[in-house]
Amino acid sequence: MRTHQALAERTLERVLPAAELAPARLHQAMRYAVIGGGKRVRPLLAFAAGALVGAPLERVAMAGAAVELIHAYSLVHDDMPCMDDDTLRRGKPTVHVEYDEATALLVGDALQSLAFHVLAEQPLADDPAVQVEMLRLLAHAAGSRGMAGGQAIDLAAVGRTLDLGELEFMHIHKTGALIRCATLLGALCGRALTEAERSGLDRFARSIGLAFQVVDDLLDAEASTATLGKTAGKDAQANKPTYVTVLGARAAKEWARELRAQADAALVPLGPAAVRLGQLADFIVKREF
Amino acid sequence: MRTHQALAERTLERVLPAAELAPARLHQAMRYAVIGGGKRVRPLLAFAAGALVGAPLERVAMAGAAVELIHAYSLVHDDMPCMDDDTLRRGKPTVHVEYDEATALLVGDALQSLAFHVLAEQPLADDPAVQVEMLRLLAHAAGSRGMAGGQAIDLAAVGRTLDLGELEFMHIHKTGALIRCATLLGALCGRALTEAERSGLDRFARSIGLAFQVVDDLLDAEASTATLGKTAGKDAQANKPTYVTVLGARAAKEWARELRAQADAALVPLGPAAVRLGQLADFIVKREF
Repeated sequence: MRTHQALAERTLERVLPAAELAPARLHQAMRYAVIGGGKRVRPLLAFAAGALVGAPLERVAMAGAAVELIHAYSLVHDDMPCMDDDTLRRGKPTVHVEYDEATALLVGDALQSLAFHVLAEQPLADDPAVQVEMLRLLAHAAGSRGMAGGQAIDLAAVGRTLDLGELEFMHIHKTGALIRCATLLGALCGRALTEAERSGLDRFARSIGLAFQVVDDLLDAEASTATLGKTAGKDAQANKPTYVTVLGARAAKEWARELRAQADAALVPLGPAAVRLGQLADFIVKREF
Repeated sequence: MRTHQALAERTLERVLPAAELAPARLHQAMRYAVIGGGKRVRPLLAFAAGALVGAPLERVAMAGAAVELIHAYSLVHDDMPCMDDDTLRRGKPTVHVEYDEATALLVGDALQSLAFHVLAEQPLADDPAVQVEMLRLLAHAAGSRGMAGGQAIDLAAVGRTLDLGELEFMHIHKTGALIRCATLLGALCGRALTEAERSGLDRFARSIGLAFQVVDDLLDAEASTATLGKTAGKDAQANKPTYVTVLGARAAKEWARELRAQADAALVPLGPAAVRLGQLADFIVKREF
């Protein structure tokens, strides 16, 4: 896993424009927003899915970097004053604090463009039609029917009471779409999947995407700001519904374990080559709660 | 031209998610930001370039819509309080005024994703590798080495004195990149261009992209808010360098005509099939100054 994390990091360093290239301040801020932070869960999922289908590492690294750039842009915009108004991210001042709001806005915008550029820049699949499909999947996962739509649902939910179904609908969009996309893109870099494999992988990705969010909610409620590297307790403070507020902490932990079990079951048709995906599921669910 | 404008409009209506689809408020705001406004210069350029190479209209309409969605998102973000802080666009309240800032941020983000989705959703070229190249061109034109980079240079220029070279560098990014991209994408929907054709088309697109901005600066300085549908005189008020402040109005008009002549000259290798592009160049330069 460390090797893959390091490769993900190197790939991001390489695809981001150099800090001295004009417009230099924008490029510096883009690098500040992306490099040296995060667990790179999305690239790790891409690598693990790529391993299933013998995908060349350098292709999967590009696909994983593209998804991570979308994730990074969403954090920059999400931290802005008109959204969550947060000042700390991965233990550092957020981009609009370190630079300014206008720069944060442009950093997010340019990181989104860069994600698609990375996914289109070199051949990532033997069949270019598959690469077009990868680009379509990323655009869908990032857009109003995916991550950005999830953010909008999140905004509308502040101060309201959601039931479990509504909460799940929100997170399937907000976090789940991109996690699922990372997994599918990794797999599309290699040999074609059988229908049973693709469907198993998709079920795995959906379960693990939700599990990720349940654990995030638990961490926000229970861990300290120092451990998280971002402000803890923000959800409660912002009066946002979470798995912890909707289910209670104990049932939320139970739900994370149940989703983990569903993810495991989905891997069965994929056979022993799915071992990396299983390990990642553990990593995601067993973060420190 | 009216036919093409109407087709561009219909295509945008069709690719934008329905207003009643969840998350409905976001989708309504996306439609508010895009539909029923603007001259659709970028789709028109795509149609005119597509006509050169016998490209099917429905393909070019999708390519033009993708570029227009990038343009539309940039206007939404550009109008936000942390950027130009404008309240009027195309004669209507800007998105953050009509909705709220967080929604405007998400509308821009989701429109950018949608642009790439539109360009990846269906086959737009006989060879899928060409479609990957189209996606790459759009990502480059939108990103930090294109439009978003131009915005960053623009921000940094406020209150400074630029020389003509610096001003041109800014506009080649801020406006030129997307205008050039629209032209190239239109042409990529049809038969392959010869090297001479592609280079002529590229020179045309670069000249007309700059001419467009010179005319925009003249209009901002000389036309009324009612004529423009957006706040006039904003550049001077914001202490932004423009072609009018750098060259003076008379020389700026002369420069627009010169760029128009360069665009004409670039069309020569393209023969009589380029007549539409020439008409468009007239339309762009002869807007009401």
